[in-house]
Amino acid sequence: MAAGKERHFLAELLARTIRVGRSARSDSTPPDLSQLLRAVLADRGEASGLTTASIILDLLEAADDEALLGFFRSLLADFSPDPVPIRALLEQPLDAAAIRSLHFLAEPPSQEVLRRLNRVPGGTARLVALRARLNKLMKEAPDLKPLDQDFRHLFASWFNRGFLEMARINWQTPAEILERIIAYEAVHEIKSWDDLRQRVADPDRRLFAFFHPAMPADPLIFVEVALTAAVPSAIQPILSPDRQRIEPEQAKVAVFYSISNCQEGLKGISFGNFLIKQVVSELSRDLPNLKTFVTLSPVPGLAAWAKAEGLATPDDDDETCRLAARYLTKAKTASGTALDPVAHFHLGNGASLHAIHPRADLSPRAVRTALGVMVNYLYDSARIETNHQAYATKKAITTSPAVTALTRS
Amino acid sequence: MAAGKERHFLAELLARTIRVGRSARSDSTPPDLSQLLRAVLADRGEASGLTTASIILDLLEAADDEALLGFFRSLLADFSPDPVPIRALLEQPLDAAAIRSLHFLAEPPSQEVLRRLNRVPGGTARLVALRARLNKLMKEAPDLKPLDQDFRHLFASWFNRGFLEMARINWQTPAEILERIIAYEAVHEIKSWDDLRQRVADPDRRLFAFFHPAMPADPLIFVEVALTAAVPSAIQPILSPDRQRIEPEQAKVAVFYSISNCQEGLKGISFGNFLIKQVVSELSRDLPNLKTFVTLSPVPGLAAWAKAEGLATPDDDDETCRLAARYLTKAKTASGTALDPVAHFHLGNGASLHAIHPRADLSPRAVRTALGVMVNYLYDSARIETNHQAYATKKAITTSPAVTALTRS
Amino acid sequence: MAAGKERHFLAELLARTIRVGRSARSDSTPPDLSQLLRAVLADRGEASGLTTASIILDLLEAADDEALLGFFRSLLADFSPDPVPIRALLEQPLDAAAIRSLHFLAEPPSQEVLRRLNRVPGGTARLVALRARLNKLMKEAPDLKPLDQDFRHLFASWFNRGFLEMARINWQTPAEILERIIAYEAVHEIKSWDDLRQRVADPDRRLFAFFHPAMPADPLIFVEVALTAAVPSAIQPILSPDRQRIEPEQAKVAVFYSISNCQEGLKGISFGNFLIKQVVSELSRDLPNLKTFVTLSPVPGLAAWAKAEGLATPDDDDETCRLAARYLTKAKTASGTALDPVAHFHLGNGASLHAIHPRADLSPRAVRTALGVMVNYLYDSARIETNHQAYATKKAITTSPAVTALTRS
Amino acid sequence: MAAGKERHFLAELLARTIRVGRSARSDSTPPDLSQLLRAVLADRGEASGLTTASIILDLLEAADDEALLGFFRSLLADFSPDPVPIRALLEQPLDAAAIRSLHFLAEPPSQEVLRRLNRVPGGTARLVALRARLNKLMKEAPDLKPLDQDFRHLFASWFNRGFLEMARINWQTPAEILERIIAYEAVHEIKSWDDLRQRVADPDRRLFAFFHPAMPADPLIFVEVALTAAVPSAIQPILSPDRQRIEPEQAKVAVFYSISNCQEGLKGISFGNFLIKQVVSELSRDLPNLKTFVTLSPVPGLAAWAKAEGLATPDDDDETCRLAARYLTKAKTASGTALDPVAHFHLGNGASLHAIHPRADLSPRAVRTALGVMVNYLYDSARIETNHQAYATKKAITTSPAVTALTRS
Repeated sequence: MAAGKERHFLAELLARTIRVGRSARSDSTPPDLSQLLRAVLADRGEASGLTTASIILDLLEAADDEALLGFFRSLLADFSPDPVPIRALLEQPLDAAAIRSLHFLAEPPSQEVLRRLNRVPGGTARLVALRARLNKLMKEAPDLKPLDQDFRHLFASWFNRGFLEMARINWQTPAEILERIIAYEAVHEIKSWDDLRQRVADPDRRLFAFFHPAMPADPLIFVEVALTAAVPSAIQPILSPDRQRIEPEQAKVAVFYSISNCQEGLKGISFGNFLIKQVVSELSRDLPNLKTFVTLSPVPGLAAWAKAEGLATPDDDDETCRLAARYLTKAKTASGTALDPVAHFHLGNGASLHAIHPRADLSPRAVRTALGVMVNYLYDSARIETNHQAYATKKAITTSPAVTALTRS
Repeated sequence: MAAGKERHFLAELLARTIRVGRSARSDSTPPDLSQLLRAVLADRGEASGLTTASIILDLLEAADDEALLGFFRSLLADFSPDPVPIRALLEQPLDAAAIRSLHFLAEPPSQEVLRRLNRVPGGTARLVALRARLNKLMKEAPDLKPLDQDFRHLFASWFNRGFLEMARINWQTPAEILERIIAYEAVHEIKSWDDLRQRVADPDRRLFAFFHPAMPADPLIFVEVALTAAVPSAIQPILSPDRQRIEPEQAKVAVFYSISNCQEGLKGISFGNFLIKQVVSELSRDLPNLKTFVTLSPVPGLAAWAKAEGLATPDDDDETCRLAARYLTKAKTASGTALDPVAHFHLGNGASLHAIHPRADLSPRAVRTALGVMVNYLYDSARIETNHQAYATKKAITTSPAVTALTRS
Repeated sequence: MAAGKERHFLAELLARTIRVGRSARSDSTPPDLSQLLRAVLADRGEASGLTTASIILDLLEAADDEALLGFFRSLLADFSPDPVPIRALLEQPLDAAAIRSLHFLAEPPSQEVLRRLNRVPGGTARLVALRARLNKLMKEAPDLKPLDQDFRHLFASWFNRGFLEMARINWQTPAEILERIIAYEAVHEIKSWDDLRQRVADPDRRLFAFFHPAMPADPLIFVEVALTAAVPSAIQPILSPDRQRIEPEQAKVAVFYSISNCQEGLKGISFGNFLIKQVVSELSRDLPNLKTFVTLSPVPGLAAWAKAEGLATPDDDDETCRLAARYLTKAKTASGTALDPVAHFHLGNGASLHAIHPRADLSPRAVRTALGVMVNYLYDSARIETNHQAYATKKAITTSPAVTALTRS
Repeated sequence: MAAGKERHFLAELLARTIRVGRSARSDSTPPDLSQLLRAVLADRGEASGLTTASIILDLLEAADDEALLGFFRSLLADFSPDPVPIRALLEQPLDAAAIRSLHFLAEPPSQEVLRRLNRVPGGTARLVALRARLNKLMKEAPDLKPLDQDFRHLFASWFNRGFLEMARINWQTPAEILERIIAYEAVHEIKSWDDLRQRVADPDRRLFAFFHPAMPADPLIFVEVALTAAVPSAIQPILSPDRQRIEPEQAKVAVFYSISNCQEGLKGISFGNFLIKQVVSELSRDLPNLKTFVTLSPVPGLAAWAKAEGLATPDDDDETCRLAARYLTKAKTASGTALDPVAHFHLGNGASLHAIHPRADLSPRAVRTALGVMVNYLYDSARIETNHQAYATKKAITTSPAVTALTRS
């Protein structure tokens, strides 16, 4: 960053920070955040860096939305790449080596600020929470999007699948993790500790989650699995406490009936595909009797699409299924992928569209958004690669004969 | 990467890979590495990505130097940024937002290749080992340096201090880790398991190391500490098995007598400063009687500098100390920092030059490189910040009165 | 058991065992338990012992009360000491060596049966549960008491304090343990997981438990501690979710407000004294500001005693306190110890009777049994030994001046 | 102890304890151990019991053999059962209930002393070490044998198989445990850490040990296993660092080539049978290709027996094998069991005598004691029960056809 700007910046020190830092500490004169950030960046010797970084995070967490917005904007303004060396480089021929140099020269100092803040013990989780607030603020302040790119770029690197650990969540799991599972469940609400107990400790249930070592008590994503005798056609029998439980060794089918992303601050960093595949692999090894791996998934965009298409809500089950089949196989985004986000996720993973069930979820939300329809996507290890390639390269959606039939007149 | 290049590349498949993949697997037709890499990159759905990535790492580890060099060069050639969108962007005004876009557009796909390879269980350690081989090959092939930048950039992010865990190494530590400590000790060789036992299990000894969660049994750096009654003036009394041991509670001084970086593949990623400071903090808490934290450090550049300066080897201790004091305080690099690398490291951390000891290490190497001199650097928490700032901004070296006296006439 | 009987028995062993082992699973012919027990005892080579022992435990757990009673009686009848060698020994002079021999000769084989059953993985917990049933059956069948002596003797040895591990229970504790804490709380009911969360995870709360390594998820006893600014005079402010929480470092007093024995099957094996003292020791070390360790205890026998003595329920607080003081210091058992069991426990541990509080617990049970009175017993490390000796040898109860004053007319 | 004596003793307690407790640290007046023991026993309230018990153990460990002998004798003399209540009981008819009472009345207080000493953290290991010294002293002082019975009785109860944990020892094991494995190996010496590394970390090697929770870093017994393609006929190929290693999945045979009891103080408490069977069970599960479980065992009594029988050392292998076969199947103790202790151990476990190998161990000791012969005992799960019963009831030794043939003329 240019020296002149830095001087200017330092001159504005006190005025700006009073607002930001007021509540964070009892100091009568609050510190200036950008000043502090600059100290963190400058501190190659790391003499006091951890302390400063820790204070910054404290201040940011205590800041209200307005103050935080101000901080993000100054981060964007004051910690952008220095254009001078870039312009100098661009005066030479732009060969491969020059382009590579360009990449490093053009790296925003705001990225390094985030790396420094991450050094604080517990810093990773705090940065993830900070990005969640950034994303919320971005709705009103789209100018912050480039800053979000920094977060996303770093998080994609830090949360590389090679660093994640899959763990089974059960009744031996610490309460603080279980409490978060209850809070994070986004598909089929967990109503109580008793409800949770069934989902993690019943013999025919499994719950697996990914964790990052820097956030050991806070799951990133989890999937809930029911072990059943047959492919299910509705959610209620899965969730019912009165259901007939079976021993895991007798199960033939593993049903992924709920997948929840836990961290808003990790939006755009995808874990679901890896998680499902590792769960398939682990369950196959532990329970060789399992032959079929399917989801029981919502169809969140069905009703809205039908309405937009001017189609009436069908009267009977068959018509409803045909409508859903048409939606799932024919409704596409501009880039040609499936319009339904859940369909796109599973098809992109290499699953096929296996079955469509009417009146499968009669909760108000499901009736309103999906006409009560639920769907099985099938994860067949032998065909995942082919399905995935077909969808990735030709946007071709693999369907079972039954679904194919539904799509015909 | 341009589609044309890709086609061309695929056409060359078999010819190139025979050499590379020969020994790795028994397949009669070996796979093409770049092809495989491309598959890994293309695989957004991660259908078969982990398997492919795993095969690639197997092949690379089995490859001889020539094959590996070929691989690195093709990685550099074929996985460089696509110039087309960059050129398009450069036709517009180069404002801050454009520069930030430039950074992302100019990111070499070779970085993403490394991220993908890292997804394999155990991938991180294998990539670190791969970079160690890259660095060796670079001596003959400086054209690979841009590729090394990719490695270094990613490793700096992945091995962020916030992800590291400090652990005390002692006699409860698994043998596989202890065995590596023996192998990695770079300053004062550990001669046997008995020698190791003393250094980790004697009451007046401590050994602390940093670990990364993805390499849980392989230390990144470690420091050996002696708890003593007084600041030591020679290494032999520290290392001697016949020394007088004291109880930790009686110690007044903690001596950092050996710091070893363990991973050649992490060259340029600095951990030592963090480690020393965390050890100071932990020891201060556990043993409040400790009042002084010093190193007992080599002076590796002394003899070479004296020779280059045309100075004769002094005859007596006093003259040797004066020579060393002059070297450590006056000999500078072009950028004004201390010429001696060990001095530069500790001064940069905020330590001061505390004492200079003649005949402190009579091992052949120390006599040859440092005229037998060793030095204490003092880590005084109350002054670290000031020392660091003085050295970082003004290249000023803080010395004790005794050392200051040595630098006069 | 007589050698002749054993031989006879062993001759029939195999034939019957086949039937028995079969029916253990298919249940058409019920197995002969004594037979199985004998097999377990006979099996010095441990060839099939674990399997047989495991079957026996399965059968006992499936048995109804009548069958179990039959089993216990046959255990007592058929696995009593062989009188023949004892009588032979008694024909010689009964010197010290002879008496020691007598001890071993007179050991009931039923003890060895229990030791064999304990070999099964998880056997310890199952035997503890079995004794709980035995104790219940003993109410109608006092002839089983000698068998209970075997259990108690073994458990006292197995659950020796040297084998127990104290653990802090908090929000990182596995749910299966927390669930048991909820179930086992015997003094002040834990109403929900939220209530539990406060008692284990609030900054001013602690919960410590003893565990045995063979029952790692099942606590033996636990104590709940409140960290407060002053000695409390009522339970409600301690339990209230709306109370003012203080930081642990600010607390001056640790209040043991609930102690629960968890295992009915360990009746008569005392852990409370050890637990309290270890908690005092641990809290003193971690929180040096804690100066006072008191209980807030019920007075379960007050109302019943007053009624038996023909004393009217007092009208005012002062009179109530005087009545309680008289009860606690003057009401004695036949052997001269305090009649109130809680008082006897704490006085025996070396605590003193510190304060008496009227209207301290207004729950129906406490009003009915203790006229609402609660009591502080004080654990003063400097005086525990003296208090204990005075109570143990002279049945003298140490009281604070305030309590002493209450005992005077 | 008689109630009168106890009262008298308790009266003097405090006065003396002060002196004793003091001298325990300053050593001017040696403490009276029996006095301390009595204090420990008397301390039902456990007021100061742990401290006193801890001092006693310190004193005993510092005591020389003479002082310790004195202590053991006073323990025997002063902590024997009180004869008065026993005599009173014996005046009544000696029915089953009376005999059971006799057992408890005749329990030596010395047992309770040991239980109290065990309460100290780390007490169990210290008592085990104390018994090892007792056993050594007993060689000169057979009058201590009754005291040893107390130790043995308690240890048999405390080290019940249900409390033991089997652990695989490998290169992830803490060094302090590995160091003990080196020290404890009693059959085929482990010469160095490199030698150890092979035995625990090579792919075709396993080492399993039993631990007790109160001695978590000190193994009780361990067995070394070689995974091989065929039943071995000599020890050298097993131990050789130059041997052909095989992958565990290719192994057909698991060879128990060394079993070492680690704790002299646990003499007479048998773990080997349980360990072997659990290892068989675990290996069978993990490596289903393993079909044969054999030992490669020494024949320690062969040469001595041949000499005692006046038999000449044979000249050729066949004759040597016949001699060994005769020794192993015909040489018996007075009670009819196999004279050779190793044979007796494995036959008692249900193994069969499978093969006899000449020149199988050419170490000086093996040549001297066993004429170089080694033996395979076969653990065949399907036949263990039958073999065991045959040996236990009829002293019948099961042999393979090959061995049977050797026993014929």
